[in-house]
Amino acid sequence: MRSPITDYLTEALDGVRDDDSGELAGYIPELASADPGRLAAVFATADGETYSAGDAEVAFTIQSISKPFVYALAIADRGLDAVLEKVGVEPSGDAFNELSLEDDTGRPLNPMINAGAIAAHTLAGKKGLDPAARLARIVDGLSAFVGRRLEVDEAVFSSEMETANRNLAFAYMLRSHDILEEDPVAVVEGYTRQCSLLVTTADLAVMAATLANRGVQPVTGEQVVPAPVVRQVLSVMSTCGMYDAAGDWATQVGIPAKSGVAGGLIGALPGQLGIATFSPRLDRHGNSVRGVSLFERFSTDMGMHLMEVSAPGLEVVRSNRVLGEGDDAVRVIELQGGIRFSGAERAVREAIETAVDTPNVAFDLTLVHSVDDAARRMLLEVVRRLTLDGREVFLVDPERIIDDPEPGDGGRVTVVESVGQLPGQS
Amino acid sequence: MRSPITDYLTEALDGVRDDDSGELAGYIPELASADPGRLAAVFATADGETYSAGDAEVAFTIQSISKPFVYALAIADRGLDAVLEKVGVEPSGDAFNELSLEDDTGRPLNPMINAGAIAAHTLAGKKGLDPAARLARIVDGLSAFVGRRLEVDEAVFSSEMETANRNLAFAYMLRSHDILEEDPVAVVEGYTRQCSLLVTTADLAVMAATLANRGVQPVTGEQVVPAPVVRQVLSVMSTCGMYDAAGDWATQVGIPAKSGVAGGLIGALPGQLGIATFSPRLDRHGNSVRGVSLFERFSTDMGMHLMEVSAPGLEVVRSNRVLGEGDDAVRVIELQGGIRFSGAERAVREAIETAVDTPNVAFDLTLVHSVDDAARRMLLEVVRRLTLDGREVFLVDPERIIDDPEPGDGGRVTVVESVGQLPGQS
Amino acid sequence: MRSPITDYLTEALDGVRDDDSGELAGYIPELASADPGRLAAVFATADGETYSAGDAEVAFTIQSISKPFVYALAIADRGLDAVLEKVGVEPSGDAFNELSLEDDTGRPLNPMINAGAIAAHTLAGKKGLDPAARLARIVDGLSAFVGRRLEVDEAVFSSEMETANRNLAFAYMLRSHDILEEDPVAVVEGYTRQCSLLVTTADLAVMAATLANRGVQPVTGEQVVPAPVVRQVLSVMSTCGMYDAAGDWATQVGIPAKSGVAGGLIGALPGQLGIATFSPRLDRHGNSVRGVSLFERFSTDMGMHLMEVSAPGLEVVRSNRVLGEGDDAVRVIELQGGIRFSGAERAVREAIETAVDTPNVAFDLTLVHSVDDAARRMLLEVVRRLTLDGREVFLVDPERIIDDPEPGDGGRVTVVESVGQLPGQS
Amino acid sequence: MRSPITDYLTEALDGVRDDDSGELAGYIPELASADPGRLAAVFATADGETYSAGDAEVAFTIQSISKPFVYALAIADRGLDAVLEKVGVEPSGDAFNELSLEDDTGRPLNPMINAGAIAAHTLAGKKGLDPAARLARIVDGLSAFVGRRLEVDEAVFSSEMETANRNLAFAYMLRSHDILEEDPVAVVEGYTRQCSLLVTTADLAVMAATLANRGVQPVTGEQVVPAPVVRQVLSVMSTCGMYDAAGDWATQVGIPAKSGVAGGLIGALPGQLGIATFSPRLDRHGNSVRGVSLFERFSTDMGMHLMEVSAPGLEVVRSNRVLGEGDDAVRVIELQGGIRFSGAERAVREAIETAVDTPNVAFDLTLVHSVDDAARRMLLEVVRRLTLDGREVFLVDPERIIDDPEPGDGGRVTVVESVGQLPGQS
Repeated sequence: MRSPITDYLTEALDGVRDDDSGELAGYIPELASADPGRLAAVFATADGETYSAGDAEVAFTIQSISKPFVYALAIADRGLDAVLEKVGVEPSGDAFNELSLEDDTGRPLNPMINAGAIAAHTLAGKKGLDPAARLARIVDGLSAFVGRRLEVDEAVFSSEMETANRNLAFAYMLRSHDILEEDPVAVVEGYTRQCSLLVTTADLAVMAATLANRGVQPVTGEQVVPAPVVRQVLSVMSTCGMYDAAGDWATQVGIPAKSGVAGGLIGALPGQLGIATFSPRLDRHGNSVRGVSLFERFSTDMGMHLMEVSAPGLEVVRSNRVLGEGDDAVRVIELQGGIRFSGAERAVREAIETAVDTPNVAFDLTLVHSVDDAARRMLLEVVRRLTLDGREVFLVDPERIIDDPEPGDGGRVTVVESVGQLPGQS
Repeated sequence: MRSPITDYLTEALDGVRDDDSGELAGYIPELASADPGRLAAVFATADGETYSAGDAEVAFTIQSISKPFVYALAIADRGLDAVLEKVGVEPSGDAFNELSLEDDTGRPLNPMINAGAIAAHTLAGKKGLDPAARLARIVDGLSAFVGRRLEVDEAVFSSEMETANRNLAFAYMLRSHDILEEDPVAVVEGYTRQCSLLVTTADLAVMAATLANRGVQPVTGEQVVPAPVVRQVLSVMSTCGMYDAAGDWATQVGIPAKSGVAGGLIGALPGQLGIATFSPRLDRHGNSVRGVSLFERFSTDMGMHLMEVSAPGLEVVRSNRVLGEGDDAVRVIELQGGIRFSGAERAVREAIETAVDTPNVAFDLTLVHSVDDAARRMLLEVVRRLTLDGREVFLVDPERIIDDPEPGDGGRVTVVESVGQLPGQS
Repeated sequence: MRSPITDYLTEALDGVRDDDSGELAGYIPELASADPGRLAAVFATADGETYSAGDAEVAFTIQSISKPFVYALAIADRGLDAVLEKVGVEPSGDAFNELSLEDDTGRPLNPMINAGAIAAHTLAGKKGLDPAARLARIVDGLSAFVGRRLEVDEAVFSSEMETANRNLAFAYMLRSHDILEEDPVAVVEGYTRQCSLLVTTADLAVMAATLANRGVQPVTGEQVVPAPVVRQVLSVMSTCGMYDAAGDWATQVGIPAKSGVAGGLIGALPGQLGIATFSPRLDRHGNSVRGVSLFERFSTDMGMHLMEVSAPGLEVVRSNRVLGEGDDAVRVIELQGGIRFSGAERAVREAIETAVDTPNVAFDLTLVHSVDDAARRMLLEVVRRLTLDGREVFLVDPERIIDDPEPGDGGRVTVVESVGQLPGQS
Repeated sequence: MRSPITDYLTEALDGVRDDDSGELAGYIPELASADPGRLAAVFATADGETYSAGDAEVAFTIQSISKPFVYALAIADRGLDAVLEKVGVEPSGDAFNELSLEDDTGRPLNPMINAGAIAAHTLAGKKGLDPAARLARIVDGLSAFVGRRLEVDEAVFSSEMETANRNLAFAYMLRSHDILEEDPVAVVEGYTRQCSLLVTTADLAVMAATLANRGVQPVTGEQVVPAPVVRQVLSVMSTCGMYDAAGDWATQVGIPAKSGVAGGLIGALPGQLGIATFSPRLDRHGNSVRGVSLFERFSTDMGMHLMEVSAPGLEVVRSNRVLGEGDDAVRVIELQGGIRFSGAERAVREAIETAVDTPNVAFDLTLVHSVDDAARRMLLEVVRRLTLDGREVFLVDPERIIDDPEPGDGGRVTVVESVGQLPGQS
């Protein structure tokens, strides 16, 4: 049986195929000769499954879509503070090819505009790498996001260098502000090679899925960059990724995204999905016309908007009952699902309101699938308080969802495998 | 037992209490005389619980925090298109008191800067309302968000009108662009009254919780504005709510937010929580100094950042087994948790890969707590395809999570209460 | 015999009459109904002669051409420093209807843009005048420039007030910066009345001639404003008078000028001439299309460009000879023309080089027509030095061009009526 | 006897000597090591005399003072239209080292900011010169302005190239707009060499005097650039020469000027004088602190402000009488001084008003020293009209001030040497 998701993607492509508005990127000869009819869309899940439609295996140059990934490498390699010293995080409200430097510091406003991306390029790899070694680091890093070895399209690279005057101007301006500390020409060559890496729409979807998956490449399982780096990158994509159409995108699509001048477009839905589309004709903002239409459709059809509040959430407290009597009486609060702050708050509230009259209290985590740090701290704190209140506290936690529980000063907890092991139940 | 969340808030206040940096809003005499030491923080959950610490019941004027709510009322009353015609959604990169109009149309860039908020004020209520009726609509609307009747602080209103020249300048400029179509002075008076509504930190937290709860006031249960309106408002807050520090906030805090010049600050975590703080001293962006610190702490401590990808999610497919044999053989795919796009994708994939050799297939939804529209459509589509493939399909759905299932052309499904009711199980 | 200058003006009008490009000022209903075919040009000399062609006696509203004159009144009434505190002198590079305030002070960049003109309006008359008294002062002042009583066109005034929102916005913004210290609405009413004064092209030419004539109205002989005020006003007109086309105008025309939205255009050639044209259709800068063409022609045809260096100047030293012998020998240096710095330099040089061997030295000023302050000081200084050198020094000065000569410490000079009165000549 | 002008300059230097405010240009190492105490001032007259005080023979690099002269060479070599296509004439309101390009064309706003000066550099010499030949043309041209061979300071050149990143950025940006059509690095090297030419204050004063003298070097007599080029250059200096302090300068000093970062400052008073000062400490606009003070003093003391309207001008008509009687009666209108438009107007008026009753009319030009083109045309036109009116017309013109008079269709004129040769006078 064919997956309805693949069919959905095929239908979505059919829905935009006839839109031939927009223009190829005319200022780079090699891009101007691209086949404007190409069209592809790919979903890559955070656990490694891929759905594709159209020309998903056609290679094109990554261009600006390299920016968030190289920004991620820079933060991973140098630390966030070192990168913030050279590149800001504020939306510019300007086009990608405007200079947009901070008045006082000369910092590019963000790493998604060209000036900022050029600065970020020089921050990838350890300090002091020569341009070739740094480029190697970047190609390695981007290849790790994709899960296969990427190659530079030398013809596009040469073609872009011929018209790279604007980027060279940016680089010299950054040099004059000491944002760059090396030869601007070599930097722009490196940056242009970075932009000339060949990728397919399928590759891009997996790269986006790696961001959606906290930096872990879903297929290879490699932690390409640490999770906190991904958080920073997604945040910047959400406010700066679509240039001067940031607000339109945030309201209408609501998926952190990045476009490239060759026609690629990616989006990353945290925890869920990487999406990529490919269609070379661009709107006046430099974003793929049909790509934008596809993302608008995906967001609406699939409820993918970040601000789409899901239907009333999972009832975290599945049941609450008292087993046994007397000294063996135990209040069992059964939780379920994935517990983050708001789930923990609900569980804690339940305990406070109801665990007032039994000598024993148990939290049954059998149906719980994940507990984040904040939730773990809150649950253990309520365990500690119950202990101080004179109760005996138990976790029913057969899968050790709360690994090595330590409720802190004065607290005590016993972990059991099943409700049957609670006091008076055997 | 005292809730650890209340204690956490109290501790958080203690952590920032000694920071007396920043300045009161000096340009409004009544605000300049506020007690700068006031400090409060409140969490309000999407199901109506409230945790508070500090001066949570002290009243102050809502000021710019009214902006997202009046923007919501305007969209609810006039429709999104009518509002977009007069106010944009792009971050301005400028301070709140800059004019920031679009070059060609004269539209204010977004509804969070003053010029945009003044325009949004005139769009609340039905077209043609006189200023008094429109203000009444706004007071009613904001009161509904709070769940109690709000009043204007006439002393602050008078004081602000004395120094409202800049807003009057904005209003006349909007009038010159036909963004406003009525007397600018009356509009600014109305807008200033809107800003002079008295609220407490507790009120603000509940207002934010209403946004977090898809527009439904958690305590009264009233749908104050429709869910799609809330999506728009949260999106705009996420890119424009913190003025020219939008990028800093998006990366460091990652919660859609809005500040007010009287010292209030709110954040709404979609589906989870409303947060409010109060501390009158402001930084150079016009945001509450200690409020910003508190939100940074909440975001970090509680994992509330929007781009915080939660730990590897719930395994949607809890089990997959075949019961019975021959014509009664049924493949039972047991799902759990809340199902949105990525969960449905996983379920569909499981069915496609495994439901190949039994005459009957069942999706067991007993442990499923919610299914959104996209997921529902995907599940029913796979039901339809299985039917066309010659299988008999069942939903084990005792709580009617998928209400009135209709798999579409050629599809057929039988709903049962328990696995025991499947073929060959009785 | 008809003056060739009148014929020249008539020809010049014929040369541009067929150009019907440009548009009437559409935003003011009363101006939009003007007869677009009107055309006039007038030259008014610094000594009171007037040459006119076309519709020179048709009345229209003065509009922005009032700006330099009211700026002049403000400086005359309050002093330059008080005016500079509220309005700058830098070109804005922006259109007349842009706000263009200094970032830090809120001062309008110059008094030729609307914001600056509104501020200048409030500085006319003594501090503390009420709006009506101030307007009276302005009408009196502008009437003195013209030499007849001016009246407000109340229909145009009312029409402009209906669309004065942009100016009201400016006024409120100036109020917010304390550049204005009174009710912005009353100020804009006064300013709009100022702009609605009815003038003819002939009136405007005389107003410009008053500027060209150091502030003395050529016909009435009234010193309307002091000469140093005129210098300031002409300087500002030269850099800011033609809005964002300042550089084009300065290079191609080179006459300090000011245009009005009703179609008027004036230029003042210091010391020589006032020029005015009238043609209502405006270019995109808001300047009269045919008026600009006429000024370009006048500048070229008549060599009126400020930077047009005249042909090698008057030989200041007309003759240099020695009369008499022995103790009566007198070196007579005969000067001619108007003497300013460079003429005095030449005379001083002549004296130093040649007055080395006679006991008497005379400067013959019979053919000299004017001596400015700097030249006077230089001539008297060389007199002093010659005295100290042991010479007897004489001025032949029948018309007392150097009134009451006082050569300073150690100097001495004898004034005689003619060369015949010099030593040994009688 | 020592010239009082030299003494005046010495006094002026003493008046500013103690002002040690301002900073050396720190970003160019070689300039940062200059002696900050250097101070000089030089006046050079349009007829070749020079007055100097202070360190007038100390050499320093010309820097931005080369800009107006190279702009002049570019116009002379390529024509004004070709230059305007690449560089505008509008004041930028920005600092010299801001990019300031026109939005649509990418043209630098004017040739006095760095971007515009870089563009102008490439327009010197014939089209197609290689960089070395072009630099040779520029060195030749600037040397002709000075009247001696200039040399590049290679140490300053090398030092500046090390920190030329901003100019390189500008050049690449101009290249990207096709304002430059060649290698940006070679262009910046050439431009930097241009800026590194060594000059003295005395040299600069003579360069300025060449501008004041219609492009004729006063000492060598060479016409370095044509007079219309000088008009363009002086116009641009008057509005753009002092960067973002253009308006302050225009009002307070009123002399077309240009400053250089090494501390030089020049001014050119059309028809009169070149001025130069040297003092290395710069204000925040990049202009020499003490240089600006000196120019303010010169302007005030010497009445050099362009808008300083001289005292009531020369009475052009010296006498008007009738000689003889009957058929020999001749009206003799005696003119004097230099005649430009306004003088000719006065003469023409006199003729029209008084030459109504004699068969002969004579204009006595014996005391006239110059007649410009416009005045010549007007006088000959009135001659023609008098002829058509039936009069016999004479010019008494012993020095052939009006060379080869040709009054046009129907006109006739007789030139005589003296009044004694008029009808009935012998």
